Formats: sequence, structure tokens, C-alpha cells
Amino acid sequence: MEPTLEDIRAAAERIGPRIHRTPVMTSRSIDALCGARVFFKCENLQKAGAFKIRGATNAVFSLPPECKAVATHSSGNHAAALSLAASWRGIKAHVVMPSNSPAVKQEAVRGYGGEIVFCEPTLAAREETLARVVRETGAEFIPPYNDYRVIAGQGTAALELLEDEPDLDAVLAPVGGGGLLAGTAIAVRGLGSRAEVIGTEPAGADDAHRSLHAGRIIPMEKPQTIADGLRTSLGDRTFPIILRLVPKIVTVSEEAIVAAMRVLWERMKIIVEPSSAVPLAALMTRREEIRGEHVGIILSGGNVDLNQLPWSIPNGRSS
Amino acid sequence: MEPTLEDIRAAAERIGPRIHRTPVMTSRSIDALCGARVFFKCENLQKAGAFKIRGATNAVFSLPPECKAVATHSSGNHAAALSLAASWRGIKAHVVMPSNSPAVKQEAVRGYGGEIVFCEPTLAAREETLARVVRETGAEFIPPYNDYRVIAGQGTAALELLEDEPDLDAVLAPVGGGGLLAGTAIAVRGLGSRAEVIGTEPAGADDAHRSLHAGRIIPMEKPQTIADGLRTSLGDRTFPIILRLVPKIVTVSEEAIVAAMRVLWERMKIIVEPSSAVPLAALMTRREEIRGEHVGIILSGGNVDLNQLPWSIPNGRSS
Repeated sequence: MEPTLEDIRAAAERIGPRIHRTPVMTSRSIDALCGARVFFKCENLQKAGAFKIRGATNAVFSLPPECKAVATHSSGNHAAALSLAASWRGIKAHVVMPSNSPAVKQEAVRGYGGEIVFCEPTLAAREETLARVVRETGAEFIPPYNDYRVIAGQGTAALELLEDEPDLDAVLAPVGGGGLLAGTAIAVRGLGSRAEVIGTEPAGADDAHRSLHAGRIIPMEKPQTIADGLRTSLGDRTFPIILRLVPKIVTVSEEAIVAAMRVLWERMKIIVEPSSAVPLAALMTRREEIRGEHVGIILSGGNVDLNQLPWSIPNGRSS
Repeated sequence: MEPTLEDIRAAAERIGPRIHRTPVMTSRSIDALCGARVFFKCENLQKAGAFKIRGATNAVFSLPPECKAVATHSSGNHAAALSLAASWRGIKAHVVMPSNSPAVKQEAVRGYGGEIVFCEPTLAAREETLARVVRETGAEFIPPYNDYRVIAGQGTAALELLEDEPDLDAVLAPVGGGGLLAGTAIAVRGLGSRAEVIGTEPAGADDAHRSLHAGRIIPMEKPQTIADGLRTSLGDRTFPIILRLVPKIVTVSEEAIVAAMRVLWERMKIIVEPSSAVPLAALMTRREEIRGEHVGIILSGGNVDLNQLPWSIPNGRSS
């Protein structure tokens, strides 16, 4: 069943002792740039460097005691987060990863004790390999976003944001697979806030924008964006929630993402990954729509390869 | 007269409404790296991006009401901080800068409303130009470190750190001109803490280390370090305090500074400038001396040119 505010509150209880209550930061110079008052929920400062630990921890600590392993397919923040959450519970995490995954992502998973199972870099190989791992190890599959336990966990970030800053006119979150956005929308609507929940995504990976317009999931064939966390498409658990609770998805250019990322680094002195900069990019390119408003933004994560920063790449385009 | 703990407390009262109370952050992975528990006072998240706003604000708001302008010579964080503090008081800030100063530093000063007076890039030209500005405008000279008002202001960072974390065995600060280190030592000793105050500096700018051994100021002729905030030498106001209250100055290599800076960026997801990484570099290279201890570190600032990061420069050496 779709999670409710009560499920998010239960998730907050479950994961609270294990994760960081991340700070809500503000910057006068960014406020001036946007013509609004902006409150940043800093999930880049979260354990394992991203909000993903919330959903992963909620899922892992919701499992029955006899479950001794979890598995997933992801080469990104969810894989690292699930490995860390599993280590806290003392169970195994099997992570199916394409054989061409960057070394830095492999190291993150291994660093948290996860076990990598390599596969060919195709969707079919990934699904087959995951099915085999689940069959052979009895691991419970914890999907990166298309899972109600994960969605409820991700919603705890917005819950904390509104506890700290109840007086918001809008809450912006990036949307990839939709776990964060769906959880955010359930939390904000459940709390009775007046804040509009707005999804933000790269124009080069605008499946959420198009799906919302079409009223059905339109998967992204070839996403083209530096925001590596947002290349995935909506799932059948996240989409209906977003369709019902999120009135608007704003898309932004690659140039706007890189510019917003640089603003966050320079003005706030914090490291965010490109996906995190997407909501601010939306604000900076649509200033007239939010003049004077109080806007909450979830900064999704801070895992970035410091050897490959987008301002050293022409046009900020990485793939 | 040399500042006391009471002067630092008075400075804290004076500047408190205007500056950030910066957070004290921790990182389990850095604790594991150091074999100690490390508490970072995040002055990189301070207004104008560095602790310098503390001393500048204390000095500016200590001035008599008839004073309508301040002046300084600095191309670094003090110049920007003084400009910002002066703007809060509604008075002018004149900043004498070498004509070859980086554009980014000029922009910071102008962005806060400071007025730049260019001079030839020699010490003589700088001092002559400053004297002329003071004569012509009646501005009060606020030195970057060799000033008791400034020293008292810088000491408020350690005051806050010990309020948040009273149970420290050591407090480490970087030392350039010595304003931060002197203020830190007065605060820590004044509070009756058991913590040892340790200065840390680049081996390529080790005037404090050599001066402490010699018992007299030995200025640095040609400092060679990426830590641009630490190229200055001790002054006659800072040195006697440090000589009396700081038992040890630890020097570190350029490679250790860059490695520590990268650890801070990657593990804590915060942006620090090279000078800020010097204390952690000292911890990481002298792990055996601090095993199991509780160590406070003042992260001095976060103003860094994102186009010129040290890991893209061979050997991390920039000058």
C-alpha cells in the first residue's frame, strides 16, 4: 500500500538513531540571486553522502529477523547506502553492478562492506544477475526507488525540513526514479503545509515532465545529463503518487545545472553533486515565479568525483 | 594591552549578532583515519568565508562613533572581511592591494563594498600607499593580525568551540601572522581547559616554528606554500602571546596539506581552502601522538579558486 504520513513518521523513528539529522542551511547571497528566501536541507552532509541512506535504512530495518541478506542493482548512491545500512544490521548486501562501473563507485560499496557482483552492462544482464543472486542467497531485493519502504524513508527528509521551517511556500526536489519526490510530496501534503511540491529534472532526462503530461510513464531512452543521479525513469510505485500530488515538473538545461552547482560550492562552501543543483537551477532560471517566497530545497547528495568537475569540461556535459 | 579572556568575551558579545555561530562538525571516517576524535569548528561556513570576519567586526565595532572609514593592506580574507564589517557599520573600507592581485580577490572586496587602492607589488609601495590613504581619508588602519582588537575577535572561534565541546585534549589552529593562534591560546588558557594549544604551519612557511625556537621573530623571506593564508610572518603583537601560551608548532609538507584538504572535501563534503587543511595534515602525519584523544581543529576558511584546485596541479605546489 502507498505510504502515508504515518509511514514516514514510523520511518523517521526507525532510522533516527542511525542517520544524521542534517542541517537546514541558508545563504543571503543565494537569496539575493533568487529574489526569494531559500532553505537548503543538506542531505549532502548525510551519512554515505546522500539522502539514499534514509530509504535504504528504513527498508533494511523493516525486514523480518530471519532475513540475512539484501540485494540491489545500482552503481550509484543507493548501492553504497544499502551496503552501509546492511552493515548496521549485521547482514550482507549484494550489489549487482555493470563491469564498467567507475572504480570510485565500486570502492564506496566495498568500503561499506557491500559485496559486488559484476554483470555485463545491459539491462537484461543486470536483471538476470540480480534474479540469480536473490535465488542463490535468499537476499531480499531492495530497489533503489520503486519500493514503498524506500519511498517512506526518503520522505523523512521533507518531514525534518518542515519541522525546522514550517513556513514554506514551495518545496523543490530533484526527480530521477521518483523515490525522493514521491516521499517528499506525501510528507508535505500529509503535514497540511501550504507548500507546493515541485519536481525538478534535467531537460536531457525529462521523463517525469513528459510522463506527468501524458498521464502515463514514458521511460527515458537515452538520458543525456551530467546529473548522474537523475538518469533513471519513474517506476510504477512512484509515478502514481507523483501524478496525484505533484502539480509541476520544471526542467533545466545542463548549463543551468553547472551554474547552480558552482553557486552552491562558492557561496555555501559545501560540496554537492550535479543532481543536487537541479532545484536551485530551476529557481535561478524562474526567479519571477517565486519572488519573495520561502522555498525549501532538498540537496540530495554530495558524491562527486573531484578529479572530474564540470567546470573543467566544456559545456558541463559529461555523457 | 594584550587581550584577556574578558576581551574575547566582550568581542563575542559585540560580534555575535552579526556573524554566524558556525557548527562544530565531526566525521567518523576522519576519526578512523586519525585514530582520534576530531571536532571541526567550521569557519569556512562563516560570513565572507573565513574566521577573519570575527577580528574585523570586533575592530570595526570598537571604533569611536566619529570614525568614518577604515583601511588595510591585504589581498586575502581580511580585506573582504573588513569591507563587509565596514558595510555593516555604514563606514568606508579602503583596501590597498598590489596591482597584480587575482581578479577573484578584487571582486570579493568590491562585492562587499570595499574600495580598492592599487599599488606596486612591493612592501615599500604597499606601506607608502596605506600611509597616504590614511592621511588623506582619516581612515583607521585595521591590520590583518597584528592588532589586539583583531586578536580578541579571532579568539571567539575557540571560545565557541569550547562551549560546544569542553572536553578537548588539544586545539589545533593554523598560524600565518598569528592572530587566530594567539586569540585561540588566550581563550583556551583563559577558560582553564586542559587542552594543549598547538600551532600548525607549512614547512615552506615555517617562520612561527623557527621564531618559537629562537625566542625572537624570524620573518619568512620567501614563503613557498599552497596555503596562501599562511605566507605572512608573525608580528610583534602576536608573537609574545604565542611564545608564552603555545608550547609547540608542528610543520607539514605540501603533499600532506593537499591530502588533508582532499580528505575534508571528500569525507565531510565541505569546501576548505588549503590553509584550513594544515591542522588536519598535522594530525594525519602524527597519529601516534594523539591516539584516542579529543582534538579540536579550527577550519579557518573556504575561499578557494574552483578553477585551480591543487589536485589538478602536479605535486600540489602552486607557487
